[in-house]
Order: sequence, then structure tokens, then C-alpha cells
Amino acid sequence: MEIQLWCVGKTDRSFWSPAVEEYSKRIQHYIKFSIHFLPEAKAAKKSLPQQLKNDEATRLLQKIKPDDVVILLDEKGKSFSSVAFSKEIEQYMVSSTRRLIFIVGGAFGFSELLYDKFPKRMCLSSMTFSHQMVRLFFCEQLYRAFTILHNHPYHNN
Amino acid sequence: MEIQLWCVGKTDRSFWSPAVEEYSKRIQHYIKFSIHFLPEAKAAKKSLPQQLKNDEATRLLQKIKPDDVVILLDEKGKSFSSVAFSKEIEQYMVSSTRRLIFIVGGAFGFSELLYDKFPKRMCLSSMTFSHQMVRLFFCEQLYRAFTILHNHPYHNN
Repeated sequence: MEIQLWCVGKTDRSFWSPAVEEYSKRIQHYIKFSIHFLPEAKAAKKSLPQQLKNDEATRLLQKIKPDDVVILLDEKGKSFSSVAFSKEIEQYMVSSTRRLIFIVGGAFGFSELLYDKFPKRMCLSSMTFSHQMVRLFFCEQLYRAFTILHNHPYHNN
Repeated sequence: MEIQLWCVGKTDRSFWSPAVEEYSKRIQHYIKFSIHFLPEAKAAKKSLPQQLKNDEATRLLQKIKPDDVVILLDEKGKSFSSVAFSKEIEQYMVSSTRRLIFIVGGAFGFSELLYDKFPKRMCLSSMTFSHQMVRLFFCEQLYRAFTILHNHPYHNN
């Protein structure tokens, strides 16, 4: 299995990158993992958030293959403990999942087009975080999940 | 009012510091804010987690003044949305609170001595995070809370 994190929008704060890179590297000791940035839809004059979200969704949908498993990182999603999240990852690994994709939405969130197509949603916190923070947050949790599955000592430190 | 974040244990990953410093600086545009590190209790041979936690609690209690308001950052605490957290902060500001202290526990969590004395607990996420991550997480939320209270544009970006 391969895991990808797709992020709509670019990192604009360089102080985030070393931490995200550190966790990405550590995750890759356990599994093929990569982060992909998809530029946000450009706001033309008078364009509505709804239009921007639909434009983003259309571009995302073009990149998704029929056998991908897609999970939206969304505040309306299900909350997991770190251990429950690790078991979820394990489930996908033992099933025939080839590519597991987590998506962080753009500034206006996800379009209904994506919600309809991908009902799996995961909520990292009841609080709202910057998109840069969500990336870091997610990478730390994914790394933690693998240390839990492999019984490596990180989780209780 | 003054806000302090007390952290048991030291930052051991330099890549976290720039982000935490950036948010601390931004918070200080709104309110007096500082982060304090309290060394973890040293594990002597055969010392039990319970003893270590009680040692830490005793040292913490010595530093707390009778009129401080203390909130423990704890997975068994109450979850807030970012907006609800900002209102909580506002409540403390309009009441006569002089010092509002948030505490991040050490590797083994909080002692019952602290739970008994400080019933206010706040949970940032159902997931477990490294202590370094919790600091960053908290600072970003506190900064966000002030941008919400001042109607500054950060929150919806």
C-alpha cells in the first residue's frame, strides 16, 4: 500500500517545512508516503466560494483512480484516538487497498461534489487549524500510527 | 490579564522552536503571554510513574498563587471549537482573572494531586500528540482566539 496526503494550497511559512519533512522521512521507514500540493482555484472577480470549491473538486476528481481509497480531513468527520487511527490504517493495509489518499481542503473547505463521492471523513480536532498546521498534525499522527503498529517506543514518550 | 503556558519537560527538537516563537510573538500583540518550562522529575532507580507525577505536582503547586486560574491540557478534558475557546478566554478577561495558566503535563500525565485541585481541563484533540506538538498546537489556537475576538482576518484563511 501507498499513502498520500493531498493538500489544496501551498505552504507559505517556511518554519513549518522542517517538521513536516522530518515526519515524512520517518513515515517512509514504514511505508511509501508522499505529500502533494494542488494549487487553490484562483478567485476571479465575483467568483463565489461555491464555484471555487467546485473547480477544485473537479481538478481533484481527475487525479483520483477508481481503486483509490479517499478520506477527507474534515471537521465534520469522525474523531479517532491515535490507537484507533493506527488500527484503521492497518485495516487498509490488510485489505487490498493500493493507494490511500487523505485530502486537506482549501480555504473554503470541500465541495459537495467531494462529500457525495467520498463519504469517509476524519476529524483531527474540534478546533480549526491553519492548513499548514493540519499537514504537520497529520504527519505526526501517521508516524505515530506506524510506531503503534510496530510496537516502537515513540507513542508513550 | 496575563496568560502563561507551563510545560513539564524541555523542547528537544529545534525544528519546533521557530513556529512556537512566531505564534508567541503574535499573541503578545494582544496580551501578555509567556511559556515556561519545568524540568521533568528525574527517574531514580525503581521510581514509579505515580511518584514522579506527584513530585512534579508538588513542584508545580509551589509556583501557583491562590488567585491564579489553572487549566490542565488533558485528553480527558472538554473539547472546544476555536470560537468557543475564544469566548472562554474572553470570559476570563472580563472577570477579575489576573493570571490564567495552562499546563501541559509530563510524559506520564498529571498526578491526582493536580486533578483534585484544578478541575478545569481542556482537550485539544482525541488523538495523542507529542508534547512539542501540543505547545505549538496550543499557541496557534490562542493566537487564533485573539484574532477571533478582535475580528482580525486570520481565522477564515
